[in-house]
Amino acid sequence: MSEPPPLHLGIDLGGTNVKTALLDAAGAIVERSVIPTQGHDGAEAVLDRMAAEALRLRDRAGGRIASAGLGVPGMIDMSTGIVIDVPNLPGHWVDVPAGPRLAAALGVPVDLINDARAFGMAEATHGAARGADTALFMTLGTGIGGAVLAHGRILFGVGGAAGEFGHLIVDPNGLRCGCGARGCVEAYASGPAIVSEANRRVRQGFTTRLADLIDGDLSGTTPEIVAQAAREGDADAIEVLSEAGRMLGLALAGAIALIAPEVVVIGGGVAGAGGVLWQSMEETCRTHCHVTDIDRIRIVPAALGYEAGVIGAAAWGARTAGEAT
Amino acid sequence: MSEPPPLHLGIDLGGTNVKTALLDAAGAIVERSVIPTQGHDGAEAVLDRMAAEALRLRDRAGGRIASAGLGVPGMIDMSTGIVIDVPNLPGHWVDVPAGPRLAAALGVPVDLINDARAFGMAEATHGAARGADTALFMTLGTGIGGAVLAHGRILFGVGGAAGEFGHLIVDPNGLRCGCGARGCVEAYASGPAIVSEANRRVRQGFTTRLADLIDGDLSGTTPEIVAQAAREGDADAIEVLSEAGRMLGLALAGAIALIAPEVVVIGGGVAGAGGVLWQSMEETCRTHCHVTDIDRIRIVPAALGYEAGVIGAAAWGARTAGEAT
Repeated sequence: MSEPPPLHLGIDLGGTNVKTALLDAAGAIVERSVIPTQGHDGAEAVLDRMAAEALRLRDRAGGRIASAGLGVPGMIDMSTGIVIDVPNLPGHWVDVPAGPRLAAALGVPVDLINDARAFGMAEATHGAARGADTALFMTLGTGIGGAVLAHGRILFGVGGAAGEFGHLIVDPNGLRCGCGARGCVEAYASGPAIVSEANRRVRQGFTTRLADLIDGDLSGTTPEIVAQAAREGDADAIEVLSEAGRMLGLALAGAIALIAPEVVVIGGGVAGAGGVLWQSMEETCRTHCHVTDIDRIRIVPAALGYEAGVIGAAAWGARTAGEAT
Repeated sequence: MSEPPPLHLGIDLGGTNVKTALLDAAGAIVERSVIPTQGHDGAEAVLDRMAAEALRLRDRAGGRIASAGLGVPGMIDMSTGIVIDVPNLPGHWVDVPAGPRLAAALGVPVDLINDARAFGMAEATHGAARGADTALFMTLGTGIGGAVLAHGRILFGVGGAAGEFGHLIVDPNGLRCGCGARGCVEAYASGPAIVSEANRRVRQGFTTRLADLIDGDLSGTTPEIVAQAAREGDADAIEVLSEAGRMLGLALAGAIALIAPEVVVIGGGVAGAGGVLWQSMEETCRTHCHVTDIDRIRIVPAALGYEAGVIGAAAWGARTAGEAT
C-alpha cells in the first residue's frame, strides 16, 4: 500500500462561517466544507469543531495533512500562533492560542495569517495577481483589509500588520474610524459605513427606491441593496456609493504612489456592489495619480471569490512545505 | 604589477551640484568630489563633465571602475538608462540617454536610479536601516521623495515609481500639488510649501521675528530660516512648521498602515529644520496609528547625510557586482 498523498489544509475563520479546504500539491481543492462559526459557546468549542471538521475532510480525502494554515479576521501573533484580538467574532476572542491547540489536534503545525493577507496570498498564488512581482490587494467588507505583494512575496512587516489599506487617511478632519483615528478610508467605504450613510438618508426622507426596497426596515439595509437601488436609478443610493468609491480612489491613489503595483486586486462583498462604486473609485484614482503611469497598472476584481480565504490560508501553511512562496 | 582594485562609482545629479564618489568593495568612500551642475549649456555638456570628473577620481584612486550608478532627481527608464523628465534641472532634461552616454565614456554600464530610491538604498545598505527587512524612507526637500524596503530590498514597482511618499493624499479638497493632483502631502510640507506659507504670513504682517531675519526680503526665506524663527519663539513660524509636520504625520500614519516598517528613516534638508516640524509629525503619526503597534516602529533621522545619494547610486550600480542588494 502506498503512502497517503500529502494535503494542505486551509481554514478561514469568519464571523459567520468557518470554511475548510484541503488542497493538493498543485493547489487544487480536493475537499471543502462550510460550517457555522457559532462562537457563543467559546473559542475552545469553535476550535474543537474546526479540528473535527478538518479531520473529517482528511478522512474523506484519504490523504494526510502535510501542512495547515488558519486565516483570522483580526490581530494575531504569527510567531506563537496566538489570536490576540478579534472583536468581530462571536465571543470576542482575546489571547486565544488557536495555533497550538489546532496543531495538537491535527498533528501538524498550524500557521496563522491575517485573513486579508490570506486573500492576497491566494490571489497572488492562484488568482488575479499570479506572476506579479508587485501588487496591492483590497478586501471591501465589514472592514477594509488589504495586503501588499513585494518582490513576489506577501509583505508582513512589524507584527504582520502590513497591508492595512483601510487605515489610509483620506480626510484628517473627517469621520472617526472604528480604529480610533479620524478620516480612515474604512470609515467611509466599509459595508457598515455605506449602510449607515444610506440609512441616514432614508431617515431624513431623501430616498425613495431604497426605502421601498427595505420596506421601511432600516435593519434590512445592506451594501447589495444600496447597489440595487443605485442600479434602479435612486439618486441618493448613487451618491452614497459614488462618495464611498471616491474615498477608496483617493486612498488607492496614495497606495499606488507608494507601491506602484503592476496590479490592484479588489475583492470582498462590498466590491460586488460594483457599478457606481467601482467606477467612482477608478475615476478618482486616475484623476489623482500623476507620478505613476496609471495606464500601466491593472485594477481588477478578485478571481477566486469566497474561497480565496481558505486557499490563501492553505498556501501560507504550505509555504515551508515548498508549494508556495 | 597587480590588477588595479575594483571601485564602485556613484554619481548624484542634483539641481545645484553633481556629487561623485568612488567606493571600495566594503562600501567605504575612497574618493569624492562636488562640482556645480551648471546645466544651462545642455545635458550633453553636463554628462561630459560628469564623465571627466569620474575618470579624474578614478585616476587619483589608481583603481578601475567596476560598476557605476547614477542618481537622478526625476523620472527615468531604468531598463534603458534614459532620463525621461527632470523639470528641476537647469535646462529641463527630457529624454536624455544619460546611461548609455556615460557608459560609453567610462567603459562600464551605468545604472540609473531615482535619487530618493538611492537615498533609501544607501540608508538600507550602510545607514539607519541597515539590517532591516521592511523600512520606509522619506526625503524632505524641494520635493518629498521616498523609498520602500520590502523583504530586505528596495521596491521599484511599475516604472520604478514605488516610494513616492510625497503624493500620499492628506486632504482631498486641499492645495493643488505640483504633480497636478489635489492635497498631496508635498503641497504642504516640501521646502517651497513651507517657504510659501511663511511668506504669506510675512506679507500679511503676521510674523515679527521671521520678517526681521529675512530683513523684509521674501526671496531670502528658507525652511532653515523659518526653523530659526520658530526656535526663537515666532508663533507663526511655529504654526507653519507644526502644520507641515501634522500633514507629514498623517501621510506617515497611512504609509505605516500599508507597510508596517521596522524603521522610518527621514532625511533631506527640510528634515534638518527638526524641532517643531519633527515633533508635530511624530505626534500626529502616533495619534493616527491604531492598527499598527507604533511603539515597535523606530522613526529616526538619516545617518549618512548629504553623501547618501552617491553611496546609494554606487550601491545600485554595484548590486550586480555582488556587493549590494
